[in-house]
Amino acid sequence: MRKLRYAMVGGGRGAFIGAVHRKAMALDGQIELVAGALSADAEKARASGQDLGLADARNHGSWQALLDDELKRPRGERIDFVSIVTPNHVHFEVAKAFTEAGIHVVCDKPLVHTSEQAQALLAARGRSGTVFGVTHNYTGYPMVRQAREMVRTGQLGEIRKVIVEYNQGWLATQLEAGDHKQADWRVDPARSGIVGAIGDIGTHAENLVASVCGLEIEALCADLTAFVPGRRLDDDGNLLLRYRGGARGVMIASQIEIGGENDLRLRVFGTQGSLTWHQEDPNLLVHASLDGPKRLLTRGSPWLGDAAKKASRLPTGHPEAFIEAFANLYLGVAEAILAKEEGRALGALEGDFPTLEDGARGVKFMEKTVESSRSTAKWTAWD
Amino acid sequence: MRKLRYAMVGGGRGAFIGAVHRKAMALDGQIELVAGALSADAEKARASGQDLGLADARNHGSWQALLDDELKRPRGERIDFVSIVTPNHVHFEVAKAFTEAGIHVVCDKPLVHTSEQAQALLAARGRSGTVFGVTHNYTGYPMVRQAREMVRTGQLGEIRKVIVEYNQGWLATQLEAGDHKQADWRVDPARSGIVGAIGDIGTHAENLVASVCGLEIEALCADLTAFVPGRRLDDDGNLLLRYRGGARGVMIASQIEIGGENDLRLRVFGTQGSLTWHQEDPNLLVHASLDGPKRLLTRGSPWLGDAAKKASRLPTGHPEAFIEAFANLYLGVAEAILAKEEGRALGALEGDFPTLEDGARGVKFMEKTVESSRSTAKWTAWD
Amino acid sequence: MRKLRYAMVGGGRGAFIGAVHRKAMALDGQIELVAGALSADAEKARASGQDLGLADARNHGSWQALLDDELKRPRGERIDFVSIVTPNHVHFEVAKAFTEAGIHVVCDKPLVHTSEQAQALLAARGRSGTVFGVTHNYTGYPMVRQAREMVRTGQLGEIRKVIVEYNQGWLATQLEAGDHKQADWRVDPARSGIVGAIGDIGTHAENLVASVCGLEIEALCADLTAFVPGRRLDDDGNLLLRYRGGARGVMIASQIEIGGENDLRLRVFGTQGSLTWHQEDPNLLVHASLDGPKRLLTRGSPWLGDAAKKASRLPTGHPEAFIEAFANLYLGVAEAILAKEEGRALGALEGDFPTLEDGARGVKFMEKTVESSRSTAKWTAWD
Amino acid sequence: MRKLRYAMVGGGRGAFIGAVHRKAMALDGQIELVAGALSADAEKARASGQDLGLADARNHGSWQALLDDELKRPRGERIDFVSIVTPNHVHFEVAKAFTEAGIHVVCDKPLVHTSEQAQALLAARGRSGTVFGVTHNYTGYPMVRQAREMVRTGQLGEIRKVIVEYNQGWLATQLEAGDHKQADWRVDPARSGIVGAIGDIGTHAENLVASVCGLEIEALCADLTAFVPGRRLDDDGNLLLRYRGGARGVMIASQIEIGGENDLRLRVFGTQGSLTWHQEDPNLLVHASLDGPKRLLTRGSPWLGDAAKKASRLPTGHPEAFIEAFANLYLGVAEAILAKEEGRALGALEGDFPTLEDGARGVKFMEKTVESSRSTAKWTAWD
Repeated sequence: MRKLRYAMVGGGRGAFIGAVHRKAMALDGQIELVAGALSADAEKARASGQDLGLADARNHGSWQALLDDELKRPRGERIDFVSIVTPNHVHFEVAKAFTEAGIHVVCDKPLVHTSEQAQALLAARGRSGTVFGVTHNYTGYPMVRQAREMVRTGQLGEIRKVIVEYNQGWLATQLEAGDHKQADWRVDPARSGIVGAIGDIGTHAENLVASVCGLEIEALCADLTAFVPGRRLDDDGNLLLRYRGGARGVMIASQIEIGGENDLRLRVFGTQGSLTWHQEDPNLLVHASLDGPKRLLTRGSPWLGDAAKKASRLPTGHPEAFIEAFANLYLGVAEAILAKEEGRALGALEGDFPTLEDGARGVKFMEKTVESSRSTAKWTAWD
Repeated sequence: MRKLRYAMVGGGRGAFIGAVHRKAMALDGQIELVAGALSADAEKARASGQDLGLADARNHGSWQALLDDELKRPRGERIDFVSIVTPNHVHFEVAKAFTEAGIHVVCDKPLVHTSEQAQALLAARGRSGTVFGVTHNYTGYPMVRQAREMVRTGQLGEIRKVIVEYNQGWLATQLEAGDHKQADWRVDPARSGIVGAIGDIGTHAENLVASVCGLEIEALCADLTAFVPGRRLDDDGNLLLRYRGGARGVMIASQIEIGGENDLRLRVFGTQGSLTWHQEDPNLLVHASLDGPKRLLTRGSPWLGDAAKKASRLPTGHPEAFIEAFANLYLGVAEAILAKEEGRALGALEGDFPTLEDGARGVKFMEKTVESSRSTAKWTAWD
Repeated sequence: MRKLRYAMVGGGRGAFIGAVHRKAMALDGQIELVAGALSADAEKARASGQDLGLADARNHGSWQALLDDELKRPRGERIDFVSIVTPNHVHFEVAKAFTEAGIHVVCDKPLVHTSEQAQALLAARGRSGTVFGVTHNYTGYPMVRQAREMVRTGQLGEIRKVIVEYNQGWLATQLEAGDHKQADWRVDPARSGIVGAIGDIGTHAENLVASVCGLEIEALCADLTAFVPGRRLDDDGNLLLRYRGGARGVMIASQIEIGGENDLRLRVFGTQGSLTWHQEDPNLLVHASLDGPKRLLTRGSPWLGDAAKKASRLPTGHPEAFIEAFANLYLGVAEAILAKEEGRALGALEGDFPTLEDGARGVKFMEKTVESSRSTAKWTAWD
Repeated sequence: MRKLRYAMVGGGRGAFIGAVHRKAMALDGQIELVAGALSADAEKARASGQDLGLADARNHGSWQALLDDELKRPRGERIDFVSIVTPNHVHFEVAKAFTEAGIHVVCDKPLVHTSEQAQALLAARGRSGTVFGVTHNYTGYPMVRQAREMVRTGQLGEIRKVIVEYNQGWLATQLEAGDHKQADWRVDPARSGIVGAIGDIGTHAENLVASVCGLEIEALCADLTAFVPGRRLDDDGNLLLRYRGGARGVMIASQIEIGGENDLRLRVFGTQGSLTWHQEDPNLLVHASLDGPKRLLTRGSPWLGDAAKKASRLPTGHPEAFIEAFANLYLGVAEAILAKEEGRALGALEGDFPTLEDGARGVKFMEKTVESSRSTAKWTAWD
């Protein structure tokens, strides 16, 4: 396939996640950075672009300048898509502008602050017909895709229960009181939105369940807490969930659990078996069934399904990890863009990435969680 | 110390847990079985007693006959205590009768069916002044005692959050439809009480948190489900918990999670650190703190506290397990009985076992969980 | 079955392993301590016996007095067997005397100091026809027996390679310079024999391989080292092994590997699959095969073989450990004694314990290891 | 720093490891593929280059054509280095030609077939003064570098013992009889050299020990076996090692251990502590010491040393893996090239990669292992 070109908005010097996006895109040699507006601070933006070897003409001080410039360029030179890795509060206007301009978008999560904004993006994309991906990156792991394939093809029977946890401890102290860039904006409602931990990591957990199980939330019951004195957003959230069709769920998302690094775990229980996956040991999927011992499914093994095989680069025992999973999302976006460009339908395993719909559902999940947390009723209905 | 003598009520042929109690008591050579009424079926009771080598004169067809006989015997020959390991619905009358007769009691869990019964037992014990233990056996593990010591001495700071899970899968199918003695009574409200999984394993989870953390429930929010078609009691329960003083909790207790064997796990998070313990790997306690790497505390190590040391029999790496933990409870009961007999106060580490108060609280926990599960209000207050 | 009576030689106050033997025998209520000569120091012996509630008439100051006394007692009162848990250098004379007197023997390991002594015991037992067990206790674990059944029934194909490790670190410093009873005699050639680590733990490793795989050593190549300054016996040994029929082996037995607690591990590789077992996580056996994912075999599961099932007391997830494994050896001895008494053949799964032949082979293994370690030839032949 | 340009020799369609090298170099956006001779088959070479987007002028049918072409180009356009990823038997002539032409080289392992060839490369590099890296990639893992820093700064005390294992099972059957490209050349002496498993994976194990511990082999004792019928090279090797200064070692390198994926493990034991690392869980290093519990050192933690920090891209809990480690080697080579170009000395943490000397020692290790394996003497001296 031809190499795709992208621009990045956000992700300048000192940003953590922007560099991860860039490495993920660079990994397979299929996607090339050609332009950027890497910071809201014009000077920092340009310095950051120089660090990355951007040509001066495509190294902009603002995302508006970037967009203007790209639209003036001929198709064969123009970016194929923009990758938006700014703090949350900037996502909406950038994503909307690029979508309306007919440029494909990949946007970091959580998508936007409100469902109203999400609806506006959906409407804009409806008009433009562009591709729009949201980087709920954990679904890019091969063994998550294996889990999805096994659940969707009925290998666990009917799903009864899901337990999803996202245990972190890095915000157990008042880090934002010091000089910690990551902590600073995440706990600021103006930039992070109406939720803290639930937005930063809970939405990943929600997306993981939805992706693997295809379950739809019917009602939820949330208990959000801000444990650290002075903190304005939740740093801990625990939820009971009811899914349409009768399945039950538990979600734990916390950033005050000392010892938690990036401890995302998923357990899915059906009438015939269960699956257990752990992000910190991502090459393994444990499969239990009614009629035999637990089986250790490892990435790269011949007995995995097509989805996991497609998402793998290395043989068993040669671990793949976070960046490879991230790269898989971008490859899915690239496939979708090329299919659209070529006017053909996506193949069965192509174009696999969390969509704008996933992102919008994540925003609604944040809102419903806050609504439930403030409610005295046990169950807050999804609709 | 002198050997103690006990009688067993229940635990005849085919019973699982009665044999475990007997092995636990036999282990250290300090407690001797001398009498029994091992089944509600007189014939089976006597046959079971013969299997165990009971003298005919002390091998009874009913617990009433056992009690009558013991009361006629001189002190030096009479049992020191009775161990009640019948199905749940029999606990109350037996425990009450022996307590009222001034005989010390160890009773299996959950203690009784109702708080009214529990109060009656408390009242009876108040009159008799006897020792009364309840076999929430998991608190007998040395590393659980280490956890308790660390929490109680402030090594985790102030406790913010507790996650306790008891994951089992053995009731994922309708086992009770067949010929499965354990399943049969556990899912029968007449014998098991108002709850299924919550009584059988949830009460252990509740007791573990209370024992380790000393936290008191302020309010709870429960979602109980009977997943298996035709089942009359919950086989899955998930709870959000609020503890006095502001700590939060999550409890998962399930018997339909395929792959779950006896997967009891406890995580305790404080302002300074956390502890993680897993019953299936019981010799290990993982300690995380703010200022250094996680530490693997192993049973038998020199750097453990006195409580764990006292509860250990073997050096590090020589695993101790379920029966040893169970035995520790009985040794605690024995210490309390001897102290009472000798009219002396218990030493700091003596008499360590779950008490009648723990059992009564467990009964209330079952009731409150059912109350919450039926309520449309989010929080059901404890008092 | 009737309860068996035993006497203990050694295992008095302060001894570690004697108490373990007693707990193991007490566990199932089938074997009763009735007599003892618990120390070479007569006064300490009697005090130790009093601690254990021995009747004065059967609480002796020397093993000779014990033996004399037992021989005078009528059969129905006499001990069924003696358990010898003294330091190594005492084993021979005690075991020989009891065997010659027609009393069954269980003796701790390593059996004796020399093959000459082992041959003398074999000869004595040939004359007396008594039962003689040696407590290579690790073969009592249910999952070791499962491994043996799987290997012996060809589930791994033909065995190609065995890796056995026994990693300990407790002798990494010169513990014997201080007041450490366990260390003291283990590093003293007069009491421990010609080897240190190889005798104390290497013989367990040898026995484990022999028991599980039935392989016979053809030749070995050993490198023994005494790392700790001033130590007179090896504290570290590494061996290459060649087995009859072409299998290869590696053995590591060390007491200076800091961090090693009681880290005995076995890996067996055949043409069709492999097994991995770890003593510190003894309820698990990992089975790999050519044609599917690894399977986690857990003690208590329905898909295990008869040998593992027979050796289990508790359901899956309720861990069994060191003492239960030890108890299984004694139950095997008891079965053999009763079968002999009743003049009947042992059933297929009865009488399972390491025999005098195993013990004698262990002694030869020590000798051959020392011979190889001193040799400049690569391979030292077994015969 | 400026981007570096490289050409690749080997690694065309169907090759596994060439793609890994390319991804590793692409990851950080610092190293760019500009030319290639990707196969010994000219047609396949060009097709492979087209797949990768190479310009026709730099997409060659042979490495000689590539070299000729590069030497004609001006400095500012010429490749900075060549990456040689052909089967082993081609390494020598390519590496020698590029080195003699003054072009920096990165060569896959094992370096060459004979020490004579290795000496010729060392001589050539002595004349040219070029940078020469060998991709013993496992030393690129951050936690391996942490281990090295801890050993080298004395945190384990004096090293007593090393156990290194490389357990694989993929060659447990006669894969080479079928159509398996990887298996085919690895078991062919003409292409793989005098050893099989010892060259393919044993040299990695040797390099890992040398890198982490700085130990020099004094003598070794090897037992090599070809287990699979018809196989012409060893598929299993076990070694005892003696290091200068008194340390002992054990090495296990096997490709017939069913269940082994890419199970490289290192354990290092000193007088004060030990370290354990496992390639399949590479973000963790377990540190045991004499005076406290084991500590879990995780990549990304603040308490790690500078070497590990420099080699990390992501925070704790966001796993890094095989490709990132591989990339670290190339970044080290790039630093060394730039330092040389700029005429400055390397900083303390710069230019960290296995050198030609490492590669040459690996070749000698293969020769000495074969020599020992054929010898009847226990110890084969290194010099």
